[in-house]
Order: sequence, then C-alpha cells, then structure tokens
Amino acid sequence: MNNKPTIGITMGDPAGIGPQIIAKAISDRKLLLHNRIVIYGANDVLTLEADKCGINPNWFRVDAKSNRASQPIDSAIVVLDDSEEGLLHLLREPSIVGGVVSKRWVEIAIEDSLRKPNDPRKIDAIVTAPICKQSWQMAGYKWAGHTELFAVRTKAKRHAMMFVSEKLRVVLATCHIPLMDIRNVLTIGKVHDAIDLAFQGCKQLGIESPRIAVTGLNPHAGENGLLGDEEVRLIEPAIKLARNNGIDVRGPFPADTIFTKLESFDVVVAMYHDQGLLPVKLLSFGSAVNWTLGLPIVRTSPDHGTAFDIADTKDANPHSLIHAIGLATALISPKPLLKSTL
Amino acid sequence: MNNKPTIGITMGDPAGIGPQIIAKAISDRKLLLHNRIVIYGANDVLTLEADKCGINPNWFRVDAKSNRASQPIDSAIVVLDDSEEGLLHLLREPSIVGGVVSKRWVEIAIEDSLRKPNDPRKIDAIVTAPICKQSWQMAGYKWAGHTELFAVRTKAKRHAMMFVSEKLRVVLATCHIPLMDIRNVLTIGKVHDAIDLAFQGCKQLGIESPRIAVTGLNPHAGENGLLGDEEVRLIEPAIKLARNNGIDVRGPFPADTIFTKLESFDVVVAMYHDQGLLPVKLLSFGSAVNWTLGLPIVRTSPDHGTAFDIADTKDANPHSLIHAIGLATALISPKPLLKSTL
Repeated sequence: MNNKPTIGITMGDPAGIGPQIIAKAISDRKLLLHNRIVIYGANDVLTLEADKCGINPNWFRVDAKSNRASQPIDSAIVVLDDSEEGLLHLLREPSIVGGVVSKRWVEIAIEDSLRKPNDPRKIDAIVTAPICKQSWQMAGYKWAGHTELFAVRTKAKRHAMMFVSEKLRVVLATCHIPLMDIRNVLTIGKVHDAIDLAFQGCKQLGIESPRIAVTGLNPHAGENGLLGDEEVRLIEPAIKLARNNGIDVRGPFPADTIFTKLESFDVVVAMYHDQGLLPVKLLSFGSAVNWTLGLPIVRTSPDHGTAFDIADTKDANPHSLIHAIGLATALISPKPLLKSTL
Repeated sequence: MNNKPTIGITMGDPAGIGPQIIAKAISDRKLLLHNRIVIYGANDVLTLEADKCGINPNWFRVDAKSNRASQPIDSAIVVLDDSEEGLLHLLREPSIVGGVVSKRWVEIAIEDSLRKPNDPRKIDAIVTAPICKQSWQMAGYKWAGHTELFAVRTKAKRHAMMFVSEKLRVVLATCHIPLMDIRNVLTIGKVHDAIDLAFQGCKQLGIESPRIAVTGLNPHAGENGLLGDEEVRLIEPAIKLARNNGIDVRGPFPADTIFTKLESFDVVVAMYHDQGLLPVKLLSFGSAVNWTLGLPIVRTSPDHGTAFDIADTKDANPHSLIHAIGLATALISPKPLLKSTL
C-alpha cells in the first residue's frame, strides 16, 4: 500500500493551460519521491494535452462516480475522471461549461481534503491550476476566486495570499478588488491579520524569527500624513498591535523602495494586489507560488492565469506549477524535508 | 567667452544630501564637456560638504544679489550664492528655513531659465536636487512638489513625470496624491495627456516611432470589468483617442506583468505613483532620472529624496544626479549628441 501523503491537483479551466502544465509536471518522477498525486479533472483533456506534448500518459484513470473511487488505490498518479460535458472541443476562451466543471473539481477536492485521515479518498494538500473568473461568472458563481471559495468551505475565519519564490515572500492585506474599493475594506484588523498570518506562514516555512516589513498605502507611505492618512489611521496601529504581540514587524515603508531592501526582511506585507504582485512578477516571473494562509488545509497554486492565448501551443511553462507542488509537498512533510526543499 | 549651453542646478534642502551630491557630481570634469553649470544655493554649505568629502572647491562664487551676477561670467562652474540665513548648523531634518531657501533657489532658477537667449543670466535647463516637502509645508508653501511649481511658473498647460533609466521609461498619469484620491482626478483627458506627453518625450529622446504601453488601474487591468470599471470608462477611451491621433499605444495591460515585457515597448504609462515607481526603483535604483514632460524648459532631477538619515555621512551617492545632468545635457544638445549620450 502506498502510504505517502497525497497531493490533489485540480485541473482548472479545461480550455486554459492547466491540463497541459499538469501533464508536463507529472511527467517528472521526482515529484513522486515524497507523495502520491490525485488529479481532479477530465481524463480526455489531460490525455489530449499529454499527446500534443509527446508525454506518455503515466497515470491510472478512475471514474470519479464509480465505487472504485472510494477504495484504496496504490498508483502513484491517479486521475479522478469527472467529465460528462464533452470538453475536447472547447474554444480557448471563457465559457459556462469551463466555469461549471472547474468549480466542481475544486469543490470535490476540498471535500476530499476535509475527510478523516483513514479515508481512502483523503488528500493532504491541494494544488489548483488556474481557473477563469469570467467562466465562473458566466456559470453564475459569485466567488471572486479560488481563495474565497476555500476560505468559506473550510470555515477559515481569516485568510491571506502569500507569494513565495526564491527571491521574496509577499503577503497581501487586500486582493482581487477594484483599487478604489480599498477604502471600504482596509481596516486595522485586516492589516493586523495579514501581519499575523505572514508571521505564522514564515514559521511554517521554518523561519524561526520572522522579520516582517509592511508597506504604506500611499505614495512615500503617506509622507507623514501629507499624502493620505491610512498609514496613521490604520497601518501604524496594526503594526503596533502586532509588535505588542511580540512580532518583529516594521513600517509602514514606501512601497517603491522597500523591495530594494529585501535582505533585511523575511516577508513583506503589501496593502493591495499590484503593490505586492508587481515585485513578485518582476523578480520571480514564472517561478512564484501562491500559498493561501489561514486555511486548515494546505493549498498552493501557480502565479499565472489560464493563458488562453497560448493554450493551443505546446509552450505552456509548468515551472510555477511544479514549484507549487514542491511547496505543498514541503508544507505537509517533516521539517528536515521542508528546509531542504525551500 | 564661454558660450556652451548652461545647466542650472538648484541645491534642494540644505540639510539633505543635495549639497553633497552636487559637490561630488561637479568634481567630474566630463560633465563640463558640453555645458557650463550654475548652482543656485548656499556657497558655505557646498564648501563644507566638498571639504567633508575631500573635494577641491572648483567653482567661482558670485553673490546672487551683486551686480556681478547679471554680467557675463566665463567660468565653467559658478555658484550663485544666495544665503543669509546661516544654514551651516541646520539639523538633518525638515525645517522652515530649509523650506524657504530651497523654494527661493528654485524660483530664481526658473526665472533665469525664462530669460531671453542673450541675457547673461539665461540658463538652458534646470536640474533640481531634492527638496523636502515637509520643509515647504512648514514654510507655508502649498506646492505638492517641484513639478507643480515648475508647471505654474512656466505656464505649462499640462505636464507629467517621466522616469528614464537604461532599462525602462515610465510616465505617470497621476502622481503625488493619496491613493484613494485617484478617483477624483483620473479622467480620459488625464490619461490621454500622459500618453501624448510620453509620445512627445520619446520623440525628444530620439525614438522615431515610440511604442507605448498603458497599465490598468485595477488588479488584472479590471479583468473585463469584474474588478473595477476605470479601464472601460477612462483608460480605453483615452487609448482609442491617442490611436486615432496616430500614436502606437496599446493596453490597458495588467500592471503586475507589463514590466516583464519591456522589450516590446519604449515607454510605459502607469496610472499612479507606486505602480510606476516600484518597477523603476526595482530595476534601476539610484540611476533613474525624473524628467518633467510638458514644460517649455528642460527640467530633470534625481529619483531620490533628501535622505536626511545619511546626510551627515560622506556616503551620499551622486549617481542619479549625474544621470540627471547627463539627460539635461542631451536634451538641450543637437541630436547626434543625444543619441550617443542615452
């Protein structure tokens, strides 16, 4: 019996590059040294992409609705095939059916991750390939994205995205919202949660005394109140609160210069999407991993989208997905492995 | 008679690193190959900083209030000495007197730049060392910064900041305002002006057919309206307008990835300060130059502030100021020099 930890990978939007990068990633047997893999998606789409890229199908297909799916399976790679929709001829664009299946696969994976330890379908971490938010909207789902769905289904009280690469770690205090809506959601609590989750996350990554930098919201971090008051009203009190709880956190720093001083910090807490993602993409494009902090389960994902525009080619780069699987592996493994993996 | 073009350098806040980086920059005689230099500031502060750094005072002092200041001067470097305030013992911090003198020096330089060509005090370009906005506020000046003062004094109808380095060029559609105030100032006209000024600026830099990228305001450039509507309401119409005028401009692109595709564009128009400055500082810290587009005169400056915290040391880096002088030199020179300088 294969009793390594199991990593579930959801296929994402079937018209995007998800199936192709999964086929490429799992062709590397090194990924299976420490764990099994279960793929939630459509076997025919995965097979087509593997064939297109000259990859031998190296997995065991199980019909997700069959009894077999609930029994122990010894294979290193299992595809839990769940598709009756006929996805092979989808155009490379947002679609209702793409939204329906990609959401369903995530829901099933989350269910499996919440099962009891001895359940044969139990999985220990989830890596999500990119979904298309417009497909989800077309299918009638209001979720802003994966992260919010995970948070609700796993009953997480708070959560935040951490981007992890060799060069930097960034946690976002707010995420996929219109820029001008930040004023409605940024609070002392929100900033403090991001700091606290960044601290806990660094600890999980094996950093014993995490050093945290926090950005300002405004140009020059508000320049002593001349250019906006959120630093004084919200960010400074949140930093103070975290410091009172013993966390080594400093700021708010001007966002345009703090990323040139990364050697002094283990993680930067940024106030919003572009402020945090711009340095991540600039310093680590294609190799950063998105890790959802605050969940009771481990969930990581690559740092890119469905890339419909290149999904018909053979050129989709599996690098970020491979890193996402690597980080998930490390996070569910004993510490020595963690340290050697990161 | 020395009839090379004249570059005026304003000293900035006397308590900051301005005087030190000027003393260092002008010690390099290469800067004088193509132009003369006139420094607007305090001779005693400049002398003290030069002395501290072991630099020989290589300039000719003229009392700004004397008749001599209005007569032709043949020296390659002139300090137009204007200080009765006793600045030598200023603390390294914002101050009223620092605000008063640093603003006055800029005002005099602008006046001189607007003189007729045959006026002995005429200067051909201005390079500004950093002022401290808080000092200006303490002195009662409401100007957001240099740029706004230049725009009003030179009666510029529109203006924008371009950051220029070897690696990228960035123009900002909005600048030193609280982030949440963008909604009050970003208009189709504002974005269009930034695109048009970016185009004109690239032409001045000798780029014959500038290719321009425009960022979105929201995460993922609004993701087709799911994450904010400024792209659809403001940015796309501005791009269309500019395209109708024959400008090669594309976007809006997600800000977090466009800076990884700089090989396809000559300049990026960013919507706000941190979105544009974060990549500038990350890719070109200490070597980028700020150039004010839209003025009837040439004005450049280094990309950093007063750095009070290191102003007592000898370690202030003149690199960005030297680049600012170099860009000003190129912009007032015949085209062949421009091409060899950039």
